[in-house]
Amino acid sequence: MHDVAAMAGVSIKTVSNVINGYPYIRPETKERVEAAIAELGYQVNISARNLRQGRTGMIGLAVPELSLPYFAELADSVIRAAEQHGLIVLIEQTNASRERELEVLSGQRRHLTDGLIFSPLALGTEDRAHFAVDFPLVLLGERIFGGPADHVTMSNVDAARAATQHLIATGRRRIALIGAHEGETVGSAALRQRGYEQALTDAGLPVDPALIGEAGLWHRSTGADAMARMLDTGTEIDAVFGLNDALAIGALHVLHDRGVVVPDEVAVIGFDDIEDAAYASPPLSSVAPGREQIAATAVDLLLARVAGTAPAEHVEVITDFEVVTRESTVGASVRAGAPARPVVA
Amino acid sequence: MHDVAAMAGVSIKTVSNVINGYPYIRPETKERVEAAIAELGYQVNISARNLRQGRTGMIGLAVPELSLPYFAELADSVIRAAEQHGLIVLIEQTNASRERELEVLSGQRRHLTDGLIFSPLALGTEDRAHFAVDFPLVLLGERIFGGPADHVTMSNVDAARAATQHLIATGRRRIALIGAHEGETVGSAALRQRGYEQALTDAGLPVDPALIGEAGLWHRSTGADAMARMLDTGTEIDAVFGLNDALAIGALHVLHDRGVVVPDEVAVIGFDDIEDAAYASPPLSSVAPGREQIAATAVDLLLARVAGTAPAEHVEVITDFEVVTRESTVGASVRAGAPARPVVA
Repeated sequence: MHDVAAMAGVSIKTVSNVINGYPYIRPETKERVEAAIAELGYQVNISARNLRQGRTGMIGLAVPELSLPYFAELADSVIRAAEQHGLIVLIEQTNASRERELEVLSGQRRHLTDGLIFSPLALGTEDRAHFAVDFPLVLLGERIFGGPADHVTMSNVDAARAATQHLIATGRRRIALIGAHEGETVGSAALRQRGYEQALTDAGLPVDPALIGEAGLWHRSTGADAMARMLDTGTEIDAVFGLNDALAIGALHVLHDRGVVVPDEVAVIGFDDIEDAAYASPPLSSVAPGREQIAATAVDLLLARVAGTAPAEHVEVITDFEVVTRESTVGASVRAGAPARPVVA
Repeated sequence: MHDVAAMAGVSIKTVSNVINGYPYIRPETKERVEAAIAELGYQVNISARNLRQGRTGMIGLAVPELSLPYFAELADSVIRAAEQHGLIVLIEQTNASRERELEVLSGQRRHLTDGLIFSPLALGTEDRAHFAVDFPLVLLGERIFGGPADHVTMSNVDAARAATQHLIATGRRRIALIGAHEGETVGSAALRQRGYEQALTDAGLPVDPALIGEAGLWHRSTGADAMARMLDTGTEIDAVFGLNDALAIGALHVLHDRGVVVPDEVAVIGFDDIEDAAYASPPLSSVAPGREQIAATAVDLLLARVAGTAPAEHVEVITDFEVVTRESTVGASVRAGAPARPVVA
């Protein structure tokens, strides 16, 4: 640690803060320390440190469903972020069941790990009190705002507005939305629909209920069903905004099946920018919601709680996003080997 | 339990065997007991049982990479199979790193769980001795055969031969293979390539080295790279067999990009039958390797080891497979709402 501190030109305390994931370190300083660690091949003696501090060296991650690519990729990002701190991640799947989500919060398994990163899907704002737990906890997602825990979320409204604006900018006027949850006022569906409606209104376009496609769970199959239902009613469309990539890929599947040419007849954009999107045929435009940043921030916040260096008030972090345009909205002009281009940062 | 036994017409011991996952119960008996349990809403008092038996009620699952859809879907299947027995699954990702795989076997975290289901990717047959651990262990995959643990694997050679035979049956003669690992004699790549070569030889077709595409990790990106390299050399092909679906989807991506029509000009088949395959454009034919069966069998075998009811010798179970044909090999004839059809069982 002396060598790392000397090489980075910082104090030993600062090196220790970086290693322990203390959040309020200037990015330049953090980078310098990490570079010195990499250069020197410095390895924290993790077991000894954990033993000394009464820790397990493991953190928990609870997500609704690993078979949804977004959560599988999020888990992968959290694992890689935790590895930077020498931590193992134990993953639990809740199946979006209320009972399982409450069980996760009950702390039955809290002795196994130093803290928990939790993306709830069944519990909502009305369950806020359950999140006041006596172990380090960081929440992900859009179900709970202003709850009694640190929270990392994405700019859902702004990002969905930007995705819709991109479709409008490429000349689309009859933009279907796939994945709505009627009657919900919180959660990703409500927030993203709000962004969609704002973009339409800002452009002087009507919000047409015939263009709103309901889907319960956001899977490929439910996206396909919603797309098929809308086409069956004869609703005229020239674009589709899938509220996540799985829905959009389901919509692409149905459009292909019906012989509708994407993007010539109907443009399609998704949300999440999972790896699937880049490899869809045609490659799917999407919104990258800062998954790596979500994972790294969640791990950093959790470690600060574990170390007792976090502020008393709970922190809410909103990540950056980027609209990534690919062939499904802008056509084959970007095909020939060109990398996907961010248009909104 | 008395009521369940009475309703199913079996002894209490048999009910207990079913609940505890004892493997040698006739399927009809198991079904009757499970039906009675469902009918009566019987709930095992899991915490009490675990406490009494000195168990944790949790099992571990270690896989290389959750961002690979096959492993994410396998994890999902294992979680659902474990749930049937009231068990929680804690998942670890090894990143296919030798060090992490050895750490998993070292039993450092064995006190957390009752046993481990482990799909190694870095360790191979030469590391067999490391698998002689003092905790219940079930191996998945094709890296270790004849090792000191129960093992669930798939019919790689037969399934790959059937996939290749399907391409030959639809009139293809220049069948590229994507995902080869040159020089390997064990593992999925070697086994599946062997099946491919057998099918060609059986049909009197030559095995042309120009048609063998190398790919290290089996990702979409490596599949795309291998496909692009092969097309760049001007090799004439009329079909592609991707050794997994990610590779095949990468190949589809490049074919789409180059304006090659699938399946009219080039037919494509994958392996794994991940959900992606059904929703690819065009929908991707694939080999379903019995993922649910792999998961359920692994959980049953592990529980038998935990309960001490397993035989002294280690068991090797080989699952069934099925070639699932979709538009990418048989064209739009199966498009219009028809479900995918198994042609080999």
